[in-house]
Order: sequence, then structure tokens, then C-alpha cells
Amino acid sequence: MLLLRCCHSLTRFGPLNTQRHKVTPAVVSCAVRLWSSSSSEDRGSYQRSYGPRWRHGLAGLLAGSGAVLAYGLHHHKAEQQDSITVQTIEKTSAFPIISQEEVTTHRSLEDGVWVTYKGGVYDITEFVAMHPGGDKILLAAGGALEPFWALYAVHNQEHVLEMLSEYKVGELSAEDVKKQKAIKTSDPYSTDPERHPALHINNLKPFNAEPPPELLSDSFITPSAIFFKRNHLPVPQVDAASYQLHVEGLPGGVLTLSLEELKTRFPKHTITATLQCAGNRRSEMNKVKQVKGLNWGIAAISNATWGGARLRDVLLAAGYSPDVAQRAFHVQFEGLDKDVSGTTYGASIPLNKAVNEEGDVLLAYEMNGQDIPADHGYPVRAVVPGTVGARNVKWLGKIIVSAEESTSHWQQNDYKGFSPGTDWDTVDFKSAPAIQELPIQSAITVPTDGAVVDRSSEEVTVKGYAWSGGGREVVRVDVSLDGGKTWQVAQLRSSEKGQAPEPSPPPGRAWAWKLWEVTAPLPAEAQELEIVCKAVDNSYNMQPDTVPPIWNLRGVLSNAWHRVKVVIREDNNEE
Amino acid sequence: MLLLRCCHSLTRFGPLNTQRHKVTPAVVSCAVRLWSSSSSEDRGSYQRSYGPRWRHGLAGLLAGSGAVLAYGLHHHKAEQQDSITVQTIEKTSAFPIISQEEVTTHRSLEDGVWVTYKGGVYDITEFVAMHPGGDKILLAAGGALEPFWALYAVHNQEHVLEMLSEYKVGELSAEDVKKQKAIKTSDPYSTDPERHPALHINNLKPFNAEPPPELLSDSFITPSAIFFKRNHLPVPQVDAASYQLHVEGLPGGVLTLSLEELKTRFPKHTITATLQCAGNRRSEMNKVKQVKGLNWGIAAISNATWGGARLRDVLLAAGYSPDVAQRAFHVQFEGLDKDVSGTTYGASIPLNKAVNEEGDVLLAYEMNGQDIPADHGYPVRAVVPGTVGARNVKWLGKIIVSAEESTSHWQQNDYKGFSPGTDWDTVDFKSAPAIQELPIQSAITVPTDGAVVDRSSEEVTVKGYAWSGGGREVVRVDVSLDGGKTWQVAQLRSSEKGQAPEPSPPPGRAWAWKLWEVTAPLPAEAQELEIVCKAVDNSYNMQPDTVPPIWNLRGVLSNAWHRVKVVIREDNNEE
Repeated sequence: MLLLRCCHSLTRFGPLNTQRHKVTPAVVSCAVRLWSSSSSEDRGSYQRSYGPRWRHGLAGLLAGSGAVLAYGLHHHKAEQQDSITVQTIEKTSAFPIISQEEVTTHRSLEDGVWVTYKGGVYDITEFVAMHPGGDKILLAAGGALEPFWALYAVHNQEHVLEMLSEYKVGELSAEDVKKQKAIKTSDPYSTDPERHPALHINNLKPFNAEPPPELLSDSFITPSAIFFKRNHLPVPQVDAASYQLHVEGLPGGVLTLSLEELKTRFPKHTITATLQCAGNRRSEMNKVKQVKGLNWGIAAISNATWGGARLRDVLLAAGYSPDVAQRAFHVQFEGLDKDVSGTTYGASIPLNKAVNEEGDVLLAYEMNGQDIPADHGYPVRAVVPGTVGARNVKWLGKIIVSAEESTSHWQQNDYKGFSPGTDWDTVDFKSAPAIQELPIQSAITVPTDGAVVDRSSEEVTVKGYAWSGGGREVVRVDVSLDGGKTWQVAQLRSSEKGQAPEPSPPPGRAWAWKLWEVTAPLPAEAQELEIVCKAVDNSYNMQPDTVPPIWNLRGVLSNAWHRVKVVIREDNNEE
Repeated sequence: MLLLRCCHSLTRFGPLNTQRHKVTPAVVSCAVRLWSSSSSEDRGSYQRSYGPRWRHGLAGLLAGSGAVLAYGLHHHKAEQQDSITVQTIEKTSAFPIISQEEVTTHRSLEDGVWVTYKGGVYDITEFVAMHPGGDKILLAAGGALEPFWALYAVHNQEHVLEMLSEYKVGELSAEDVKKQKAIKTSDPYSTDPERHPALHINNLKPFNAEPPPELLSDSFITPSAIFFKRNHLPVPQVDAASYQLHVEGLPGGVLTLSLEELKTRFPKHTITATLQCAGNRRSEMNKVKQVKGLNWGIAAISNATWGGARLRDVLLAAGYSPDVAQRAFHVQFEGLDKDVSGTTYGASIPLNKAVNEEGDVLLAYEMNGQDIPADHGYPVRAVVPGTVGARNVKWLGKIIVSAEESTSHWQQNDYKGFSPGTDWDTVDFKSAPAIQELPIQSAITVPTDGAVVDRSSEEVTVKGYAWSGGGREVVRVDVSLDGGKTWQVAQLRSSEKGQAPEPSPPPGRAWAWKLWEVTAPLPAEAQELEIVCKAVDNSYNMQPDTVPPIWNLRGVLSNAWHRVKVVIREDNNEE
């Protein structure tokens, strides 16, 4: 399958390129070694970017700056089974020896664009126009690819190396290879924080992990340590004392706030809000047909209490007035996390969400009563309740009130939904709105798929979570033990077990999930249960029945009924 | 089936009652004649109210006042095939003759509660506790049932008469029957306006009708004459010159506005908004399992331009300030349409929808640039965009800012959604929120189910509408010709055909539907097409796949994928 995709990819490349030193297919196949990687997401993300059509992709994927030249070979650590071991391409003796000095002279389309990778020299001039990240690829011209690829593990796939091999023009001189190796190794992820060992890691660099489902539904408030983590870049090291938040685009000019000012100049508001990754439950879409993205289970969602200043208050302090809404429609967020080219993570939300008193958007500096942990945006992050995780920008550096949405890749060419009939040949990212509010969602956390229930237990307890975007309160969860033929209503919970339920939120401001539970007798005849859940919010939107009709090429918005199968074990020793 | 339900009903009654003069089953069956009615909604509604459990039902169903005594026998007009012909119960000679004078002395639980109906006298004392409308039934005590039943055709069903027959205690004296007949007949619906003959009538009294689907998608703005009509009561005759709107519950005391004041004291706002009945597409639920309510097709939805004062502005003029929101959470509307007991139609919406600048709630006096027609609320109605039709109260008489929702039947015990597993034995109306925002919806208007397409036409054009509640903009409609296996994206339209599209509405304020269209080649092999549509809004909520899992006992919120089957006719005369 992988090989087939790979061949397909090569077929498509064929007619587009005029390789100067084309490697024969036999050489390609022996020159490339497969990774022993369990991380399907990297393959996925890469193919998204380097799919058959080139206009869409990850801006800045292969971008860099002068500083990058100080970066040496990156050696992936093998401390986790999820990590990726990169093998060097076997050298052939068919290529001329080229010096770094010579490589350095090829830094433009006119002079040719050359790069080095693990001792090989590649003329990628003709690839530049096809690079999903646009001409940012030129930042790597005349130098090494390794620092960029260390940041975006997405490149570490066999077909990327195959493509690269087609552009090979020479071998870097032994002396220059030695020099490169001498440059001190550094890993932009080396300062990432320690993580809780219970987390299921979907990707190590950047770090993406989710808690085990059964832990998730144990607590109404998810402990920060097991709150799902979705980073797009290395975790930045931010010094709280020198931290500054810049607010731009308002009549008052740029407002710059220290962390202390943010805490003292504005009243602290606290909300309990659930965040969910757009890719939560993507793995179910992958089972229908492969999609591009991290292979999340059902736990890319968590619930926390957030404390901070209201964005509305800060915008008012920076000069916001209703007049502004005549010319500005978006609030852009920029993170302090950045790639080697200096491109920061970015996203935007509609201005009316930001300034509405009932929008409850926070510039949060507390999570569950403590300073926000490094993985969740220390010292300040946006919390945009009811809105997809991707807009809740962490390590917040800048807020820009603007007529335009964020121009970031993640706002423009990612995190959007498409028809199941749309593929990478036909997708037009401009045709779909950026995901903001998420649709109704629920999943079963207990029992897990494939679990065994003893007949003697006589009943089964089913647990899960339910949540909806846009502040729409979950009002009912239906549970079926027979694949959706008959339904019963689960009991909802909006507080820790045993505690009094929280008062019902005002309409449109139900930011927190509900946990639910139902205990039902084991059906007498059944040998297996197909347990299904579906939730309803107060707009009476419901989850769609099945995955295929909502399948989309990015595998986002996976909110069909959740199903787990459970085997009933007849136990003759019991009455 | 009908008979089965009827027997079931009798079975359940049995143990609850101690009939004084119990009629034998044989007498019951011969004493009762079936109606020749095509209106399933009346049967449905009645059963809703008089189902096996008695705590829920139509408040004021059997209520009245002194004035009611002036009302004589009601004779349903037979001018439409939908009208109901009521047959009299055959008299038996087993009962004593009782005078009206004697009946009149039984007007309380202590003295017994007697009523007359078509010459029979009934002691319904024991039924009072079971009456869904509560003790309002006592308003009819000592008098005739006919005026109440004339208003609520829901009573005109065989099993209601069966129930009544169980309570029979005598025959009204011939002289008193004559007196009753002498009272001038009057029909509360006789002043209802003329209607467009194209409308499909689902119920005549009160008037409920929808346009033919193919007309619906011809116009982005639905002409008022064919805009779907959903009345709960007779259309009131309102004199514009003496019309008064009362606004209560605010610090300024009661504000009373004439129509002229409403038009001149407040700026006129215009919005284009789609209204949809909660029961739209109920007929599809009825095919799964019978539900209670009008058997709407797919056209209980229409789109109009509404002009009027903003409710927000009127509430501010009446003394609204944010402080009010600390104690009040709802805005109740009372219509001027009323039943014989004086009970008016009523509903409420959340206060924050009413006062939010972006809520766009209007006190509308114009529809499509003209005075609002009588059927749509002349002279003033509430237009609550994004919200179920039932809250868009017509013939608006009173607005009450309150800590409580409207106590009306339609807010409390109707227009709510339940699990498919909930039946009339288990339903608890308090357990579900009143429908406000509606979920994502779409339907196919062209072709209609069962249509024939000639093979020679080579392609098929599919048209329809799509809309979502809560101001969520429809962003995509997927259409399938093969029952949902493969999908294509339809073209959306937000203006009249040939006109420039309206600018995109601000987020959360997309009140108008989108019309859509797709033309696709006829699949070569197919002999039949199962055309399916499903829409997506900008919260990325999607329609559920199938009807059974969203079935609910009231048949509301019917928004599964819409499906029509079309036959392809091979035509050998054509190439």
C-alpha cells in the first residue's frame, strides 16, 4: 500500500521534472530505506503538503534564516518507540565531488538552487515551484536541509527521500562533510518539558499526545498533566519576567503588557471550558480511507478551569470601540512558538466572538488554579471557549485586530472541512471556512473496544463524554447496546462525581463538556454488544450516524456516533 | 391500527374509572362513528394530549368562560376535503331525561362536573383529574362542550367520543336541546383570511398549509401568499388604529405603544430571515412510526424580508439595562389569538437573544415590503431569526421580561425533542429544553419523489434549500445520486436567480436560507436514482443520516438527509 502510494507519487512527478542526473528506478529503490516508524501522522502530513497538487501546503515547511547555518546534523533520539530513525541514503560513486563553497554559490533560481543532505548535493531548482511552502524553500538554498527537517519530522519519509534523490548532482567533499558534523548538534525540541507517562503519544516532535480514555472520564476537570497536548512546534522557553504581550490594530496604537500588568490591570475571570482538537477521533476516518494528519483516538479533548483577563477588557483598554467593528472583523493571535524561519504559529477568531461580553474569551494565565504549564502555553494563552483547539493559541505573543483572518497556514490551508467527494486533486482551501465552532460530539470512554463483560455481572456500565461547540449545552446523550436499534437516555454530569451539579450555564455559554453514564442489564440473548452513543445539544443538532459520509481528506470534524464492541463471556461457574 | 390504538386506550382507562352508567363495548362501537377526515394531525394532537399518561397535554384544551354559553352547536363546513364531519352519537333509551337546569347545578368537584354534548349529559367528575389541561376543564362545567370542541378540532376523534360515552348519565331534555340549537351558530374561524389556492392544506382550523416544494425553490424570497402558514388558533381581527403593544417587567413600568409609535419612535430595521416550523418534514418520521402532529411535508419553511423595530430598542425604551439580566432571563410573547377561555398563544425566548445587538429580533410590521398579512401576524409579530417558528409570535399583544419562561402549553409541553426510546408512557416534558435554535436542515425540492427522468435528457438537475438555526451560515450542500455512496458539492445561492449574491452575513447572523442546485450526468447503468442531500453549516454541524435514530414522539426536528427516488425512463426513440 505504502509502496503503491509511493509509485503513484513518482508517476505523477515524472512528466513535471527534467532531472539533470536522473537516478534509474533500480537505484532509487535500493538507495532508499524504509523507516521503522509507528507514526503514521508524519507520513500523512507530508502527503498532505506534497500531494499531487502543489498549491496547498505547509507554509514555511522548508524555510530558514541565516541562523540556521549554525545548525548541524540532527540526530533523532531513539528514546521512544515512536521516534523516527533516519537512515542515510547509500552513496553511489556516479556523482562528482562538490565543495560547500561551490554549493553556496547556488542560492537563486538564476544560479540554480542547491542544497546538501547527509553528504549528497542536490539541485532542486525545478522543485522550487512545486514546493508547498512556496519560495521559502529558498532560505535553505546553498546550505543543509537537516535543520529544517529536524524541525518538521514530516520530511522523514521514504518518498521524500526518493523525490530528493532524483535531484542529486554530486557528493559533498569529505572535508565539508566533516565540517558539517563538527557543528554542535542541537535539537529544537530538547527543551520541551517532561510529560506524564500515561499519555498515548501520537507524535513526539512536535509533541502530540492524548490520555487513556478511561482516565479522561474519571474527572470532570482533567488534571493538567493528562490534558491532551497538541503542539505544532517546539515549546518555546518564555521568561515570565520579561514576557510581553503586544496588542495591535486598534486606535490607541500598540499596547504592550507585561505578565504582571495583565494580571493586575484587568479583573481575573475564571471559566471552565473544554478544548478539543479538530482531529479528535481522526483514527475512525482513517479506517474508512486514509486521511492526512495525526492519528488521534477519542481523547484529543479535555476540560479545564482557566483563569485570566478577558480579551474584551484588554481590547477595550487598547482602544477598541464599536466603530472598530466597521473595518475590522478578526482578531489574530500569534504564538511565540516558531519554526527555523521565524514563522510563528498563528490563528484568528471573529472579532465579535472576541469582544462580545458573552464570548468569554480569555487571555489565560492559569489552568486548573496553577500557572499554565509549559505544554499548554506558559505564561499566557488564548482560551476561546466553544472554538476548535487550533484557535486557542498558546504562548501568546501578539494580538492583532484586523480586517483579515490570520494568513497562517493553519488558518488558511488546514483545519477546514470538505465534502467526502473532495480529494487532493480537487480541493480548494479557499472554498471552505476556517473551523471555528465545533459540532456536537460524544464518545464512549468505558468500556473500550474489544472489552469482555462477564455474563455473571448481569449489567454493563457505559461512560463517556459529550460536548458541543459555540456554547451550545449538551442536553441529552442516547446510548444503544444494539448498534443503534434501540436507545436509552444516559445520566449527565456537570461536576466531579459526588459533588453538587454546577448551575446551568446561561444560554450560549455552555463551555464545559458533560460526562455521562448509563448502567443497563445485559441483553439475555446477546453474545456481543455494539455500544453506540450520540449526543444532542440545545440547538438540537445531533451527531451523524456514520463516518463515510463525513469523511474528509484532512480527517477533521470526526463526530459520527461512537461505537465500541464488547464481548459477553458466558461463565458457567456462576449462577 | 386505529382500532387497535383505540382498544388499547380503553384498556388503560378501564381500571382508572368507576363509570356510573357504563356503556357496554357493543353500545360504544355502535354509538361511535368514524370521521371521514384526511387530517391525521387532529388525531395525532389529541392522542398527544390524551395519551396513556395524563400529566402532559394541551393547557386550556377544554377551557371556556361565561361567554362561551352564548355559543351554539358548531357545524363544520364541508367546503374542503380536509374538513371534518362530526356525526352525532346515536342515542340509546337507557338514560334518564335531564334538564339544562339540573346540569347547571353540577359545576364543581363537590357537586359533580356535568357537561352536555349533542343532547347527551355526561358526568365527567372523575375525568377532571386526568384532563391534560388541568382544572380549566371546569370552565365547561354545567354547560355545553361544543364551543370548546369547535375551537379545538383535536377533540373530534372517535376515541374521545368513546371516552366521553363512558361518562354518560342522561339525555338532555328535548326542550333544552332545542334551545341550544336556537343559539346562533358561529365559527371562530369564519373571519380567517382567504388563502392562495396553491397551498397544500394540512389542517383547515386552525389553518396550516405549505407551498408546493417546486414553487418554494423558485424564489429566494418566498412570496407572502405562499409562505407556509402555521396558525394555532383562529386569526384574530386586529384594528391597526386601536392596536396596542404592552411591554412589561422592566423598571420603567408598563410601556404601551400604538402601531404608529412603534413605527415612528424606533428606527426601522430590515432583515431577511427564514422561518421554519419545528414540525417541518414530520411526514418522514410518520413513515417510521406514527408521531403526533400535523403531517408536514418538506415545505414548512419559507424565507422573507421583515421590517420593523428592533426588540432591543423597544426594551431599552421600556427601561432595560444590563442590571435586569441579573434577575430576568426570558422575554415572553403573548399573541392576540386566543381560545374560547381567553388563553392566548404564548412563547418565550432567552433574554440574551432579545437584547443582544447581534440577535436581530424584530417587532415586525412589514413582510416583503408590505404590511404583514393577516395570516402572518398583522399588524405586528415577533421575528426571532434563527429560532424555531413557534417563538416568532404573531399578532403580538404583550411582551413580558421575566425570570421565567412562558408558561404556555407550547413552551412547556410541546415543541421539545426527545430520544427515540421515549414514548408517551415515559416522556417527561420538563426533562427537555424548549426548542429555540433549530439544527442544520436541507431538502430536495426538485425533482419530487417518484419523478421520471428521460434517459435522453442525459443529465438531471437537483434543486433544494438549506438552512441552519442560530445564525449559522450554510457553507456546503452535498448531493448524492446513489443513495449516499458518492457525493458532489452543490452550488449555493443567496439571492434571486440572476441577481448578484448578497454579501456574506457577519458570523452568527446568517438568518436566511440558501437555495442550491446541481446538474449531474445521469449515471450510465442506473435505472433509478436515490437522490440525497445533506447540508453543513459553519459550525460544521451536519444532518444525521437516517430518520429512525432521531424519531421522537412529537415528530419535531426532522432533519435527516432528505431522499427522493427518481426513475430513469429509457426512450428508444431518442438517440
